[in-house]
Amino acid sequence: MGYREFTIEGRNAVIEAYRSGRTIDKIYLLDGCQDGPMMTIKREAKKHDTLLKFVSKERLDQMSETGRHQGVIAVAAAYEYAELEDILKAAKQKGEAPFLFLLDNIEDPHNLGAIIRTANLVGAHGVVIPKNRAVGLTATVARTSAGALNYTPVAKVTNLVKTIEELKKEGLWFVCADMGGTTMYNLDLKGPIGLVIGNEGDGVSRLVREKCDMVASIPMKGDIDSLNASVAAGVLAYEILRQRDFKG
Amino acid sequence: MGYREFTIEGRNAVIEAYRSGRTIDKIYLLDGCQDGPMMTIKREAKKHDTLLKFVSKERLDQMSETGRHQGVIAVAAAYEYAELEDILKAAKQKGEAPFLFLLDNIEDPHNLGAIIRTANLVGAHGVVIPKNRAVGLTATVARTSAGALNYTPVAKVTNLVKTIEELKKEGLWFVCADMGGTTMYNLDLKGPIGLVIGNEGDGVSRLVREKCDMVASIPMKGDIDSLNASVAAGVLAYEILRQRDFKG
Repeated sequence: MGYREFTIEGRNAVIEAYRSGRTIDKIYLLDGCQDGPMMTIKREAKKHDTLLKFVSKERLDQMSETGRHQGVIAVAAAYEYAELEDILKAAKQKGEAPFLFLLDNIEDPHNLGAIIRTANLVGAHGVVIPKNRAVGLTATVARTSAGALNYTPVAKVTNLVKTIEELKKEGLWFVCADMGGTTMYNLDLKGPIGLVIGNEGDGVSRLVREKCDMVASIPMKGDIDSLNASVAAGVLAYEILRQRDFKG
Repeated sequence: MGYREFTIEGRNAVIEAYRSGRTIDKIYLLDGCQDGPMMTIKREAKKHDTLLKFVSKERLDQMSETGRHQGVIAVAAAYEYAELEDILKAAKQKGEAPFLFLLDNIEDPHNLGAIIRTANLVGAHGVVIPKNRAVGLTATVARTSAGALNYTPVAKVTNLVKTIEELKKEGLWFVCADMGGTTMYNLDLKGPIGLVIGNEGDGVSRLVREKCDMVASIPMKGDIDSLNASVAAGVLAYEILRQRDFKG
């Protein structure tokens, strides 16, 4: 996966970057500057967990590529997506049954990062995310993936249902995490598999769920409804790993 | 812990707080918002005599600690910490072998919230956190716990090593998650147990690790070092649950 950092300079450009949904890693702000646009930037930064650094005009001048920083320089990052075929090819080259994560609209970048981290550690060959609505590969995702984004390919697809149909032709089985399914310990999760994880609030969407061969439930003994999405993904992924590698 | 004001942010967290019987003093609601969860909150507020204030999005953004208020911020009493004895008593009353989480300096409030959420769902009787360094029960923790903080008691202790020694006298065994231990599937994790989860960066501290009866390793097949702390806690906690409830 490619990774590059780039800077966004100037007040409107930074405010616009926030509006467009880009995650900004870090902002260098002119120390002592308190006007309207600056307050907007500070508010957005707080809302999006951006690291703020207050620096001198000299420092900003040094950093500036454009020479027109207007007291603000933001650092953002971009990542390259993989193709679905590359993920399947990687599994084939390793001589392993494909093991993919499919994320049905994960919205929180911390969850996406943690899930990519888990996918790497359970030996999954890649992660598939949908193009719309869901969070993309932002700097926060990269940071919370703890480096996994550099190893585990992420493919972005237009239609998750169609992708599942295509992958079924390649021999994959699909299991989604949802309530009212079969307890995961009682499912056979070996072989080529796609693990589908639903949205944080809404779970797996109906059309995607209908395409799944199995619905797996994680046992829940408590008072509340559901695990955090990245924890649920981890628990299910490790049940798949246990059945593949440790079950007698 | 004495009374102090405390905010709960997000729709589900506020609804869940009502359900669990927490008294909410005041709610700030986004003016003009009329959807289902909002109507539920308004109904609960009327029923419980909560003061409602309708405010602008800007006002909510300013007040928000988490940056994800979803149009609602409630002001309630602070979460009170439990006593260690109460946690053990709760296990005894349920006629269950105690199952505790001990967090060795978790620093990220999202992780703490997600771990309390997991503790609730695996049926653990409580969570123990140290007084110093680690994050406490903040609004972000409450929100990411998805309501679990209303059910699962959290005790704050001065010295985790001393607490482990005390709990050993009560018959508990301790397992910590760390590299270089025994693969978790090969450990006997039934019976009265304390699950120790280390710090996000440093893992379990040396003194705490030395007090543990078992060191459990989660199998890792990937390129990076470690799972997210809340995912690791979830994977290990569910292995404990599997051995307790599902192993033939």
